[in-house]
Amino acid sequence: METFGKRYHPPGTPPGTLTRHSTSDTTHIRLFEYDAENFSETPSPTAQQCQHAQQNTLVDWLDVTNVNDPIAIRELGETFGLHPLALEDILNSGQRPKIDFHEHHAFLILNLPHLIDDDIVLEQVSVFIGNGHLLSFCSGKGAAFEPVRQRLRQGFGRIRTRGVEYLLYTLVDVVIDSAFPLLEDIGEQIEALEDRVLENPDKAILNTLHQLKRDLLLLRRALWPQREVISRLIQHDAELVNATMRPYFSDCYDHAVQIIDLIETYREMLSGMLDIYLSSLSNRMNDIMRVLTVVGTIFIPLTFIVGVYGMNFRVMPELQWEYGYFVIWAVMLALAIGMLAAFKWRNWL
Amino acid sequence: METFGKRYHPPGTPPGTLTRHSTSDTTHIRLFEYDAENFSETPSPTAQQCQHAQQNTLVDWLDVTNVNDPIAIRELGETFGLHPLALEDILNSGQRPKIDFHEHHAFLILNLPHLIDDDIVLEQVSVFIGNGHLLSFCSGKGAAFEPVRQRLRQGFGRIRTRGVEYLLYTLVDVVIDSAFPLLEDIGEQIEALEDRVLENPDKAILNTLHQLKRDLLLLRRALWPQREVISRLIQHDAELVNATMRPYFSDCYDHAVQIIDLIETYREMLSGMLDIYLSSLSNRMNDIMRVLTVVGTIFIPLTFIVGVYGMNFRVMPELQWEYGYFVIWAVMLALAIGMLAAFKWRNWL
Amino acid sequence: METFGKRYHPPGTPPGTLTRHSTSDTTHIRLFEYDAENFSETPSPTAQQCQHAQQNTLVDWLDVTNVNDPIAIRELGETFGLHPLALEDILNSGQRPKIDFHEHHAFLILNLPHLIDDDIVLEQVSVFIGNGHLLSFCSGKGAAFEPVRQRLRQGFGRIRTRGVEYLLYTLVDVVIDSAFPLLEDIGEQIEALEDRVLENPDKAILNTLHQLKRDLLLLRRALWPQREVISRLIQHDAELVNATMRPYFSDCYDHAVQIIDLIETYREMLSGMLDIYLSSLSNRMNDIMRVLTVVGTIFIPLTFIVGVYGMNFRVMPELQWEYGYFVIWAVMLALAIGMLAAFKWRNWL
Amino acid sequence: METFGKRYHPPGTPPGTLTRHSTSDTTHIRLFEYDAENFSETPSPTAQQCQHAQQNTLVDWLDVTNVNDPIAIRELGETFGLHPLALEDILNSGQRPKIDFHEHHAFLILNLPHLIDDDIVLEQVSVFIGNGHLLSFCSGKGAAFEPVRQRLRQGFGRIRTRGVEYLLYTLVDVVIDSAFPLLEDIGEQIEALEDRVLENPDKAILNTLHQLKRDLLLLRRALWPQREVISRLIQHDAELVNATMRPYFSDCYDHAVQIIDLIETYREMLSGMLDIYLSSLSNRMNDIMRVLTVVGTIFIPLTFIVGVYGMNFRVMPELQWEYGYFVIWAVMLALAIGMLAAFKWRNWL
Amino acid sequence: METFGKRYHPPGTPPGTLTRHSTSDTTHIRLFEYDAENFSETPSPTAQQCQHAQQNTLVDWLDVTNVNDPIAIRELGETFGLHPLALEDILNSGQRPKIDFHEHHAFLILNLPHLIDDDIVLEQVSVFIGNGHLLSFCSGKGAAFEPVRQRLRQGFGRIRTRGVEYLLYTLVDVVIDSAFPLLEDIGEQIEALEDRVLENPDKAILNTLHQLKRDLLLLRRALWPQREVISRLIQHDAELVNATMRPYFSDCYDHAVQIIDLIETYREMLSGMLDIYLSSLSNRMNDIMRVLTVVGTIFIPLTFIVGVYGMNFRVMPELQWEYGYFVIWAVMLALAIGMLAAFKWRNWL
Repeated sequence: METFGKRYHPPGTPPGTLTRHSTSDTTHIRLFEYDAENFSETPSPTAQQCQHAQQNTLVDWLDVTNVNDPIAIRELGETFGLHPLALEDILNSGQRPKIDFHEHHAFLILNLPHLIDDDIVLEQVSVFIGNGHLLSFCSGKGAAFEPVRQRLRQGFGRIRTRGVEYLLYTLVDVVIDSAFPLLEDIGEQIEALEDRVLENPDKAILNTLHQLKRDLLLLRRALWPQREVISRLIQHDAELVNATMRPYFSDCYDHAVQIIDLIETYREMLSGMLDIYLSSLSNRMNDIMRVLTVVGTIFIPLTFIVGVYGMNFRVMPELQWEYGYFVIWAVMLALAIGMLAAFKWRNWL
Repeated sequence: METFGKRYHPPGTPPGTLTRHSTSDTTHIRLFEYDAENFSETPSPTAQQCQHAQQNTLVDWLDVTNVNDPIAIRELGETFGLHPLALEDILNSGQRPKIDFHEHHAFLILNLPHLIDDDIVLEQVSVFIGNGHLLSFCSGKGAAFEPVRQRLRQGFGRIRTRGVEYLLYTLVDVVIDSAFPLLEDIGEQIEALEDRVLENPDKAILNTLHQLKRDLLLLRRALWPQREVISRLIQHDAELVNATMRPYFSDCYDHAVQIIDLIETYREMLSGMLDIYLSSLSNRMNDIMRVLTVVGTIFIPLTFIVGVYGMNFRVMPELQWEYGYFVIWAVMLALAIGMLAAFKWRNWL
Repeated sequence: METFGKRYHPPGTPPGTLTRHSTSDTTHIRLFEYDAENFSETPSPTAQQCQHAQQNTLVDWLDVTNVNDPIAIRELGETFGLHPLALEDILNSGQRPKIDFHEHHAFLILNLPHLIDDDIVLEQVSVFIGNGHLLSFCSGKGAAFEPVRQRLRQGFGRIRTRGVEYLLYTLVDVVIDSAFPLLEDIGEQIEALEDRVLENPDKAILNTLHQLKRDLLLLRRALWPQREVISRLIQHDAELVNATMRPYFSDCYDHAVQIIDLIETYREMLSGMLDIYLSSLSNRMNDIMRVLTVVGTIFIPLTFIVGVYGMNFRVMPELQWEYGYFVIWAVMLALAIGMLAAFKWRNWL
Repeated sequence: METFGKRYHPPGTPPGTLTRHSTSDTTHIRLFEYDAENFSETPSPTAQQCQHAQQNTLVDWLDVTNVNDPIAIRELGETFGLHPLALEDILNSGQRPKIDFHEHHAFLILNLPHLIDDDIVLEQVSVFIGNGHLLSFCSGKGAAFEPVRQRLRQGFGRIRTRGVEYLLYTLVDVVIDSAFPLLEDIGEQIEALEDRVLENPDKAILNTLHQLKRDLLLLRRALWPQREVISRLIQHDAELVNATMRPYFSDCYDHAVQIIDLIETYREMLSGMLDIYLSSLSNRMNDIMRVLTVVGTIFIPLTFIVGVYGMNFRVMPELQWEYGYFVIWAVMLALAIGMLAAFKWRNWL
Repeated sequence: METFGKRYHPPGTPPGTLTRHSTSDTTHIRLFEYDAENFSETPSPTAQQCQHAQQNTLVDWLDVTNVNDPIAIRELGETFGLHPLALEDILNSGQRPKIDFHEHHAFLILNLPHLIDDDIVLEQVSVFIGNGHLLSFCSGKGAAFEPVRQRLRQGFGRIRTRGVEYLLYTLVDVVIDSAFPLLEDIGEQIEALEDRVLENPDKAILNTLHQLKRDLLLLRRALWPQREVISRLIQHDAELVNATMRPYFSDCYDHAVQIIDLIETYREMLSGMLDIYLSSLSNRMNDIMRVLTVVGTIFIPLTFIVGVYGMNFRVMPELQWEYGYFVIWAVMLALAIGMLAAFKWRNWL
């Protein structure tokens, strides 16, 4: 994950300035119109088609992916009467999740985390909802919404028979729940680390620990505010969340809280593991030093003794004794055994 | 305890989808009907029996254990008019404790911790209550409720003479209080560790410390929200908790708070002990290094001296002295004693 | 202090069950009746005497100590109309401080910390107050209330001229303030440790640090909620705390806050000292290793040199030089001085 | 950044005392007057010009930079009726960001962070707004406002067609957003450090870590209160922030929150990196000690053995053996290989 | 600073008991009476003078310093109708800052920190205000109020033309602001430490760090509650703080918040520096061990080699070679160079 991860204009730029950000993917727009009986899907709809969709009684979903084309966005903004600052937020991905209530519509920003090549990537999902139409803007490919598109196309489940609020719920539910597979994966990595950290604390573990901690930190920054977004969506006494829809959005809220709980729990587990890692390192160091100390403490004095009798003084009485050599061996053995006993007594062996 | 510990559907699945989770145990349903005079227990009741129970004036307790059969759950849901999302929560165990108030009933989820083979396991207990009937769903065997079933069968205490709210209180009380034996056990383990950590900091202690910390972290995640669940149950100005029942639920609330207090206190004690463990390790390392240093610092210079007089230079005046050998011994002894004194003065001996 | 420190029934026991806990001391009851003119003290009053005391206009104080006799407690409960759950709380000591307001009386639980043989012990004080009588139950010997009893007996101060609220204040004041001598003592221990931890970090300090930290942690758990209990007592718009009594209870509240402040400050001081302890250990280790390194680094190369000229090769030109021995001494001295200079330059000496 | 960073009067000085602080730059005043059609810029306006500007219907911006001249400030204060304590705050830079509402105007203090020679410097920006005029006071050169001045001069964007609130928004926006380039820069430094800390933990990294941590700490102190300032500006039900301007100030608020989020995330990342750094150091130490231990443990015993046969005892049978020399080599090789195998088995090689 | 720092009565003492604390200084009382035209200063006023001062329309300031005489305090309490518990608080210095509102007056306790011989000392300032008179009690010499007394005597500034609330503000301002010079001093000490901690981590730094941390902790305990005291003073809808005075007290509040901000920032900086200190120690240890390891690893094997050729076996072919001695030198040099290269490659040199 990117550390800074935010696009912004240089300070002093007039508000509402829209700039193209360099990505090779082209913006893709799809218009879904449906109710219980009808369904139509228009790829790359014209301004007229959008205008027309606004006026009929069908539920409209304008599904924009790979958002990075300022001209298309400004055009859509004019067609649907959106605030220039909101358009700026859509293009400058890396925003904090938030919800704004305007007179005729609400504007939500959420973060959809997913894995690309084992790296967690955040896709910003911005949603306008009001008057029977919903506009969604994904900063990435919007692949997570494919099951929803399929359910719409195939008329599977309740989705077509309900209004635009149910569509909003479906999209929000997908965005929130997409954190679960990621967190399950991280949970498994943590369990795998736990066994290794006590037995064999090596550098690779440190690296993985650091990587996980960092990912969870950035994930928390991205997902923490979503709880409040959904809470405010539920509390807002508008027609957006009526009595029928309330249990559905409450369910989303529960999931958002569970995700934060999990992130916090994991973060504390990783902190605990780093402590264990450090303790294990100290344990290892103690083992290493104990070996050196035992070997050194036994042999350094012995080496001194044999050095003594390697001296070339003219007069050294012991050297002339018949059994001097054997006596000195006995002395050294006694010394070694005494030291080993001392180490044993100190619990160093 | 499981790190992730949550069952969920892949993101994008329609809400209310019920799936079977793989456990070998079969779902078991019992229907208790009673008032002060009457009592009946129906194992595996039919839909008609349930319907009938709903209409009479007796208190009904539908006691479902080993919940994992989607067909039986859906059928019960239809009989008692339960929300599909609630049914989903019942089957997907590992939910966060919560309480939802619906028009005719309330829906609670609680976690019942117990020990299976020295491992803490969470059993999810979901309860619907309303209109004189109570439905309880245990994700496990529901063994903790056996004393309650016995009190009902034997008509012991006040339980049969009171309404369904008293039954709710009894079940909630059992769920909350089941944490006490666990925590008492953990408290004893902590006290046992405290003595060892200062005297003999070995790897096994580190392992136990880590295990306890992890269990308390997961336990906190599971039990922390229960305080709020009961608080909201008490504050909810419905007929659920009337003036007579209020002291009982207040008692449950006090216990929930005490459990959280204990978990937090234990967590801080364990953190403190890890610090002590690390300090003890450092102390040991100091001891080890001190021995090596004392031995090395005394004998390395002496070994150098004896090495000097082991050299084979043609002209080395000292070697020819009559008492050279004894002089050198005296010098070395003086040196060793001087160093020992220096170490003594530095408090290293 | 006990780590778990709580008495509880096995989960599933009917509420209000009273059990005897094993202590050798027998429950002792005293009844004080007084107003400005009258005073009487009845040891071990009968049920009739209690009943009678309830009906007259005197202030009654039923002072129960060494609470552990379920039969006597149940009898008192019936005489004064107390809730069975409250009686259970009185017997199962180790409760969290709390206050409950009932129709005719209030029920408080507080913790009175005191020293027994240098170990902090918590005595649970439970108080019922209402309609001109006050019942106090001490889980221990209630020695802390002796000054209050004396003031009543001797009519010293304002205590007899005021109502039952003033008696409540007097008891609460004693319970709260009993933490001050303990904390002053701990503060002195901390100051004593501070000097030693920098100079001479040994194992005994670690042990004391750990002991103090643990005591403060358990003390915080026991005393923290008392602040809220008194705050709720003051805020409760009943006749308990009228305008005259408000400054008195505010004073208690201030003391409760100061105690928590002190505990938190001490805890942070101890955490800081553990850091200092660890740093001092590292400093010592550095000192030790520096000595070993200086000695080793100077003498190991020199020992190598003298070893070279102890070899027995047939052809070794230096050995035959007239001044070889003196040259080699010069070389070694130069080497040693050079190394000492290098160490000096690195600030290792 | 300066650690204390605050200018204050000696305690006891009468309130509203204005003192000159020693900086070489001279205070510079500019007066902008404009509406949709008109525009004029007056450098160093006289008191009369200011008075006149107050009375006409044009929007007035009095743009004061390098604020350090007490006389000029007092004069302006009298012309515009400002409170002496506010003037004191303007001169004594290093204030905490705040907002005060007076009868006819509001008074804001904000901190504008920017880089001067790679060092983060805070420029205090104080703003009075009310009755169609805005006074801004920069403690530094006010270079960050240059794009705004240009937009005014060139009539670029909406700025001239809107009232004084839009000017306030523009200035606040510049101040808030000026933290983004700084934080992006810090984010890049952190990413650069992350790779090095695991591979090669040297002193320079420690220095950089410490520097970044310190800067973020001081930045947090300076920027944290700005969130509340803008929140109170929005909530204040005055004419300052009307329905049209609300989305603009909400945007500022979102940015202020994002900045705090980033600072907190960075701070936690740096804390994590310090832990990793310490662990890496311990790892390195383990590596170093392992090498010493392996070498020492193999060669110290061998050196003892060769020492034994360097002794000069008259009777040493082994020395006379034909193949003694070769046998001893075989023994030593076997010993060395055995030890290497033991190290391999302990995973030390 | 004192760790416990609180005076208290033994638990069970009747409330309002006043005791003399042992200090050699005698209590000193001064009475100031003034309005815009008049001014009088009475040292050691009698009870009648005080009574009289209460009744006239002048502003009265009864300025008591070195408060420790229970008789004088009780007398004043009776003259001005003060609550006995408040008098107790005045004498038992070391109270937590607080504000109490009574019917006719308010009672404030604040802490005035100042340096005596490089040690931070807290002077408790207690203030009664009401009905045009102000009573201030300093536990120390009250030297900090000298500038205020001078301003009164000389009629300098606005102080004489305003009422008693302005006098209150002036005193509160002095008390709050007296923390700034202390904190600036601590800030400079921290900056000085920062350079040393990275370069030369010695024991003196550890001592200073610990001292500063401890002082800030106790300072925080003493000053933290002052923010709330002033906030409650402002919010209290009495005549104490009217519209004119509000900006003045707001200014005090801002300063109180800045002081807490500074203390917290410093505390975090010191925590960060302790981490850096520990890391620097580990770095040093690594340096030390690296030197020992490099020297040991090179010379221990070489010493073994020269030991081999110092053996006295009868048959040792190499010893007889013509160039054996020079060959062995070449081998040893090659070995040493190889090892140096290995160390270079491992970045240990």
